[in-house]
Amino acid sequence: MEYRIEKDTMGEVKVPIDAFYGAQTQRSIDNFKIAQDTNKMPKEIIRAFAYLKKAAALTNYDAGVLPKEKCDMIGRVCDEILEGKLDAYFPLVVWQTGSGTQSNMNVNEVVAYRGHVLNGGTLGDKEKFLHPNDDVNKSQSSNDTFPTAMHIAAYKMLQEVTIPGIEKLRNTLAEKSRQFMHVVKIGRTHFMDATPLTVGQEFSGYVSQLDHGLKAIKNTLPHLAELALGGTAVGTGINTPPAYSENVAAHIAALTGLPFITAENKFEALAAHDAIVESHGALKTVAVSLMKIANDIRMLSSGPRSGIGELFIPDNEPGSSIMPGKVNPTQCEALTMISAQVMGNDVAINIGGATGHFELNVFKPMMIYNFLHSARLIGEGCVSFNDKCAVGIEPIEANIQKHVDNSLMLVTALNPKIGYYKAAEIAQKAHKEGTTLKEMAVKLGYLTPEEFDQWVIPANMVGKLS
Amino acid sequence: MEYRIEKDTMGEVKVPIDAFYGAQTQRSIDNFKIAQDTNKMPKEIIRAFAYLKKAAALTNYDAGVLPKEKCDMIGRVCDEILEGKLDAYFPLVVWQTGSGTQSNMNVNEVVAYRGHVLNGGTLGDKEKFLHPNDDVNKSQSSNDTFPTAMHIAAYKMLQEVTIPGIEKLRNTLAEKSRQFMHVVKIGRTHFMDATPLTVGQEFSGYVSQLDHGLKAIKNTLPHLAELALGGTAVGTGINTPPAYSENVAAHIAALTGLPFITAENKFEALAAHDAIVESHGALKTVAVSLMKIANDIRMLSSGPRSGIGELFIPDNEPGSSIMPGKVNPTQCEALTMISAQVMGNDVAINIGGATGHFELNVFKPMMIYNFLHSARLIGEGCVSFNDKCAVGIEPIEANIQKHVDNSLMLVTALNPKIGYYKAAEIAQKAHKEGTTLKEMAVKLGYLTPEEFDQWVIPANMVGKLS
Amino acid sequence: MEYRIEKDTMGEVKVPIDAFYGAQTQRSIDNFKIAQDTNKMPKEIIRAFAYLKKAAALTNYDAGVLPKEKCDMIGRVCDEILEGKLDAYFPLVVWQTGSGTQSNMNVNEVVAYRGHVLNGGTLGDKEKFLHPNDDVNKSQSSNDTFPTAMHIAAYKMLQEVTIPGIEKLRNTLAEKSRQFMHVVKIGRTHFMDATPLTVGQEFSGYVSQLDHGLKAIKNTLPHLAELALGGTAVGTGINTPPAYSENVAAHIAALTGLPFITAENKFEALAAHDAIVESHGALKTVAVSLMKIANDIRMLSSGPRSGIGELFIPDNEPGSSIMPGKVNPTQCEALTMISAQVMGNDVAINIGGATGHFELNVFKPMMIYNFLHSARLIGEGCVSFNDKCAVGIEPIEANIQKHVDNSLMLVTALNPKIGYYKAAEIAQKAHKEGTTLKEMAVKLGYLTPEEFDQWVIPANMVGKLS
Amino acid sequence: MEYRIEKDTMGEVKVPIDAFYGAQTQRSIDNFKIAQDTNKMPKEIIRAFAYLKKAAALTNYDAGVLPKEKCDMIGRVCDEILEGKLDAYFPLVVWQTGSGTQSNMNVNEVVAYRGHVLNGGTLGDKEKFLHPNDDVNKSQSSNDTFPTAMHIAAYKMLQEVTIPGIEKLRNTLAEKSRQFMHVVKIGRTHFMDATPLTVGQEFSGYVSQLDHGLKAIKNTLPHLAELALGGTAVGTGINTPPAYSENVAAHIAALTGLPFITAENKFEALAAHDAIVESHGALKTVAVSLMKIANDIRMLSSGPRSGIGELFIPDNEPGSSIMPGKVNPTQCEALTMISAQVMGNDVAINIGGATGHFELNVFKPMMIYNFLHSARLIGEGCVSFNDKCAVGIEPIEANIQKHVDNSLMLVTALNPKIGYYKAAEIAQKAHKEGTTLKEMAVKLGYLTPEEFDQWVIPANMVGKLS
Repeated sequence: MEYRIEKDTMGEVKVPIDAFYGAQTQRSIDNFKIAQDTNKMPKEIIRAFAYLKKAAALTNYDAGVLPKEKCDMIGRVCDEILEGKLDAYFPLVVWQTGSGTQSNMNVNEVVAYRGHVLNGGTLGDKEKFLHPNDDVNKSQSSNDTFPTAMHIAAYKMLQEVTIPGIEKLRNTLAEKSRQFMHVVKIGRTHFMDATPLTVGQEFSGYVSQLDHGLKAIKNTLPHLAELALGGTAVGTGINTPPAYSENVAAHIAALTGLPFITAENKFEALAAHDAIVESHGALKTVAVSLMKIANDIRMLSSGPRSGIGELFIPDNEPGSSIMPGKVNPTQCEALTMISAQVMGNDVAINIGGATGHFELNVFKPMMIYNFLHSARLIGEGCVSFNDKCAVGIEPIEANIQKHVDNSLMLVTALNPKIGYYKAAEIAQKAHKEGTTLKEMAVKLGYLTPEEFDQWVIPANMVGKLS
Repeated sequence: MEYRIEKDTMGEVKVPIDAFYGAQTQRSIDNFKIAQDTNKMPKEIIRAFAYLKKAAALTNYDAGVLPKEKCDMIGRVCDEILEGKLDAYFPLVVWQTGSGTQSNMNVNEVVAYRGHVLNGGTLGDKEKFLHPNDDVNKSQSSNDTFPTAMHIAAYKMLQEVTIPGIEKLRNTLAEKSRQFMHVVKIGRTHFMDATPLTVGQEFSGYVSQLDHGLKAIKNTLPHLAELALGGTAVGTGINTPPAYSENVAAHIAALTGLPFITAENKFEALAAHDAIVESHGALKTVAVSLMKIANDIRMLSSGPRSGIGELFIPDNEPGSSIMPGKVNPTQCEALTMISAQVMGNDVAINIGGATGHFELNVFKPMMIYNFLHSARLIGEGCVSFNDKCAVGIEPIEANIQKHVDNSLMLVTALNPKIGYYKAAEIAQKAHKEGTTLKEMAVKLGYLTPEEFDQWVIPANMVGKLS
Repeated sequence: MEYRIEKDTMGEVKVPIDAFYGAQTQRSIDNFKIAQDTNKMPKEIIRAFAYLKKAAALTNYDAGVLPKEKCDMIGRVCDEILEGKLDAYFPLVVWQTGSGTQSNMNVNEVVAYRGHVLNGGTLGDKEKFLHPNDDVNKSQSSNDTFPTAMHIAAYKMLQEVTIPGIEKLRNTLAEKSRQFMHVVKIGRTHFMDATPLTVGQEFSGYVSQLDHGLKAIKNTLPHLAELALGGTAVGTGINTPPAYSENVAAHIAALTGLPFITAENKFEALAAHDAIVESHGALKTVAVSLMKIANDIRMLSSGPRSGIGELFIPDNEPGSSIMPGKVNPTQCEALTMISAQVMGNDVAINIGGATGHFELNVFKPMMIYNFLHSARLIGEGCVSFNDKCAVGIEPIEANIQKHVDNSLMLVTALNPKIGYYKAAEIAQKAHKEGTTLKEMAVKLGYLTPEEFDQWVIPANMVGKLS
Repeated sequence: MEYRIEKDTMGEVKVPIDAFYGAQTQRSIDNFKIAQDTNKMPKEIIRAFAYLKKAAALTNYDAGVLPKEKCDMIGRVCDEILEGKLDAYFPLVVWQTGSGTQSNMNVNEVVAYRGHVLNGGTLGDKEKFLHPNDDVNKSQSSNDTFPTAMHIAAYKMLQEVTIPGIEKLRNTLAEKSRQFMHVVKIGRTHFMDATPLTVGQEFSGYVSQLDHGLKAIKNTLPHLAELALGGTAVGTGINTPPAYSENVAAHIAALTGLPFITAENKFEALAAHDAIVESHGALKTVAVSLMKIANDIRMLSSGPRSGIGELFIPDNEPGSSIMPGKVNPTQCEALTMISAQVMGNDVAINIGGATGHFELNVFKPMMIYNFLHSARLIGEGCVSFNDKCAVGIEPIEANIQKHVDNSLMLVTALNPKIGYYKAAEIAQKAHKEGTTLKEMAVKLGYLTPEEFDQWVIPANMVGKLS
């Protein structure tokens, strides 16, 4: 590879001759050879930086501290970043400095160098049209830009991927709940037969879980909407023009179409990432819900002949490389693996969040990496589960009916008639002797066959159906 | 010990002769010899059951399915439970059935047996005034009572212990922030010297964290306010009189003075405990905040001679059994241990929440045990930290001033004057040669001594002080 | 309550008039009002301290720095502590200083004061026969005694409770595996029917898990066997007589009958608790195994009529307060709740372990509290599960046979005869049309009925039975 | 894109015309659109499959069930996979079926199709030289191949990346420990000044942690060395030739040069992944150690003027985009972020490990994804930290000496001379009055200046230096 020589405050560095970045990006490549193939800084963070740098340039121009040509050029390169044209020049990994300084500088360098070239210069020019620190990073610090990028990326991902994904699944389950509202089935508690309910009622519980989960996520958005930008080095806003914080947040809100505002307290915004911790806490709550839902569905569809077999789920692929004709609940499996991952990511985020010190938390890249990972997995996982599994769920009514007919727990309907103790005696003896409840009830002389038929009607045991 | 013989649907059991409980409580003692000394079912759950049983009796009476005398007697025993008079009769442990059935039956038995004695009977009477299942548990199931008790206990603990504890600490820190608002100190990022801020600004970040944390907790209260009661066995409300769910929730709200309502969806309320997961997610967010705050304070008070030494914290006890005169930040240590515990409890709760199946989650006792543990630890931990540490914090101004005077990062004020690169050169050379910034700036010819004094004023670098 | 006045280096304190402790214990009671009802310092730690103090006294006597009478008296009080006679005088909680200094001083005070009274003095005497620091704590520091007590308590609990509990369950499962070795059942993968195996084979997997788990625990014992004692304040061993470390470890080994040795590196032994982290890592591995085993057993015993119903487990208590005759897998539930708890405790321990600083880790009480909690829960949980569930497990052969007869996955036996694709066609069409494999195989013309009967024999599909 | 039509047992699928894979790979691409950019199945798993498929072919050939030409061709393609030539044909993601069936089939298809082309055929041929199931997957199931690939990949990564990385850092720290063995410094416990030790002693604690950590990892290797292969569908080994398990393990051992053996119990090996859980438990123990070490080093190097400032660490990059001349402990930050990640990954692995059911754990891809992630991060993180930080650490002796000279805790040396209480009085009064210990000791009349100089010698307080 051919190189050119770049300089920063620490000296000279060799950089690939055509790279739109400079010494600091290269130093980070050289200094952090950790999972370079698989753990690049998430592209959502790079894109968030593009919004941020453009907004900062506009705000600086408004404040009279950046000339129009520079402001325009910064915006032009940021647009290229947003279009994905410059992806190749963001080679840094998550495992770098905990403030994300090097990724901030990577963006600063790409904007400055690409801008210089767009302005007619060449990468070899000693003086450039844009300076990475003095122009592109003007009125900013890594310490306020990186957390701002974290919030932009997190909020966008929740709005564009996570929430729509959950809602899609929620709506399908709600539709299934309506469709199956009158299919009476045996309930199961402790994995043991219980009193009946309908398939639609069972699914309504899933819908309610996701509704609460969506509410939980949305409750965390206001904290995420607070941006650190304007706090600069330690939260005091040193080297920013007047009203910069408010104005730059307004520009970011306008560019992204999301309701960002400046954080009321910049010291928190740099030194802690409780907003990320809190919001991911909601994500893990949803992960917990999804684990329950996916587990239920795979167990209810178990069989086809030696399981519960009450639900049909679509066959998407041959299930086994050795057992011919086998079909498996693979979407349930992907979703439950995702749930486990999100619960693990939560712990990493907690530890990172708890370990900030003084004016800066330095677990930033790790925290946002895990947050974005979880948010994407939940969103895309819900869509996959929805499209390839949930939409095709149907009750297998023959099996469902058979289970209802056999159940001993219908005896519960007799509590108000003959009391818990006699009802228990009927159920236990029927179980022991392998007979039906009705036979045993009559045999024990507690009721007549007519009374049994009148009092024990599964469809009457499921309450009001909405 | 002397015994009497009790019976349930499975047969006879020996029970201590004077115990106000029966066969099922005794079976659970015998069947679950796990951590019996240390892991009793939390007394907050027992008290919550007392509210619940009384409310259920009132609702049953209103509905015409329970006679007034029985209703009154149930209420009378519940009041005794709330006064702590019957604590000795709740011997069961957390590690029992996952539905908490045995604790529900324990309460049913205590109410029935104690009520029978209050009614003039004796424990040996075969027929009793109150029947544990048919009277005390009327219109109920363990499956809806236990989760209701979970929500009552959790909500009460948050309101009475956790939130007031956090608020107390928050208010002290806010007061300290005001007091120290003009004490200029050196900032620290990456543990390294940075630009200045004031001690009050630093503390304002802690206040903001706790304010957001309180908001996060309060956001979860509406889900916790939803009560499962009325769902009975599987959520359908079998064996309940009309409007029972709404009415019993209203009675519970009246008895506790808290805004409980009936859960919109009872299937979720039995089968999942996302409300607990979600709310504990907020608690762990606060734990993360407290870890940060307590760590900062112990590090800022480190020394007395070889540490940072910028904060004075009260001496509460001799700190060492071998090093005479040593004083340690013990309240910080207790609080950070609590934070770690809460983060661990969170994982246990997540796993429990994710592992419910079909119509019932059977990790209920474990989940609420951890929830109440965390909620108490945070609340009482904050009060202890507040009373024995935070209220006595004072800045050690001599050390603070010395650090400001020495700092090289004041050079940041020169960025807008001479640019980042020249400013860096000044700082690096001053560091290498062990001189002051001013000496080096002048030596390098970048500014006059007068310019330095005019531009580099720490008090001007901390922004607007609110 | 009546009080007497006690003094320490910080001044005067009021202490209950008859308490065998002094100022420092009382200060800790007053300073740490956190979960005082439920989170006492584990009694295993107090007992471990008794071994340690006695051993230290013996070593000091051997070294000529403690008179024989004092040594004897210290030993005498330690014996009383080990007999549980002085439990009332250890009132401190886990949430104290992170070095456990106050619990060390609590022990020092109890030994000194009780010893003084045994020696004929009274609690009000100003000069006492034994001095808490200069005699009882001689050649020690909290910083090396507390971690030593941690290792003693942890090792003993593993040896006396955890390992025997796991082994008991392991042996029962091994016996069941032998008994059920020839009961052919349908396998289940992905919750879906698969090729057959025997119940005994299935159980042999559980046995193998526990065998590996026991090995994993035992692998961690050597690190736990290393004792910090002799490191004193920071690991250098200041204020100890020659060969003290080796000798005191030998005394502890003799007193406890366990193979304790002095830690090769005392700096690690004070500043980090990787031995606790590592060993608890093995405990959580066993928790993971137990979750799998208990889940399998509750699912295999699900029903009795609408579940899998292949295993009988004992009925220990009425399962429902509303559904008469219901019996639930309550021991499985307790064990899986325990597993979740241990996985949560693991995270708390990790965070504590990772957050030590410089010469001392100050998460000691929290770490050992969680360790002992897990170790007891696993040990006692296994015994409970064993005695009340595992020993009574029996296969329900009628159901097992029915499932084998119905299975479509027996088709796998045909792969080597007709290839995977044709075998798949048979299974899929049989499933669709609801016929048997044999009927479909013949109908498709891929084999004769005789070939089918000869090639598809479940008992031949389970491999060699050991 | 141009397509060809491929078929499997479920029907036709469009596949990119030149792709060396078939219908099942394509189905998985279509069915699992989850994090497709960032969460590919780790390449280490693909490589492990190449060893496995080659070994299986050799074993099948030895057993007379696979012709030599087919065996050779399978081996030839596997070699291409190992050389990385076919990476483009492994497009599947982690979030697929939990058995990894689709990745097993992906490998089967690539080997079969590439082999067919190498054999002179074309991708469009209906009959191929190698059949994915009947030849490449012969005597195998996804259920035993995937866990085998997990163990191969995990063991190799530990041996090639993790252990050497830790050892490299361990050796550097050991060398530093030797170099700094006589540099006396003040100890710090509770972040507070304590008695002295040497820098070398402090570092020896880190070395001891890593030595124990390496031992912990190595203790888990024997379980990882056990291979599931030969268990096929459910552990019984259906459709395998005699002695297949032992022979195929021997082939894998020969091909990899690692001591693999066949698992004693195949039922465990498919249904549980306790080996992964256990081994990752050791990795998280090391993560805990690394967090401690990296935290210490960043705090000891804090400053340069307002921190502790006792260690010099190399400057690798400009530390701030706004504060000129700032240098940060970025390698410490990367390493502590890695530690947090590993602790999070551990939880995900635990949940996956605990949630297997019956004959198969279906969290396999998630578990190994996290394992390999952690193992690489620790290995490469240690190397990065070593090369860019640890090798350059030097003590800053001037600061170290200043701290020793100032310390009040040297008073501890007086305990054996004048007792703990008088020593405490000296330290407390010296602290309050801001004087030296010596001045106060003399002033209080407890010793002469000569006695002080003779008894309080820091270098004598650090014990024997090894």
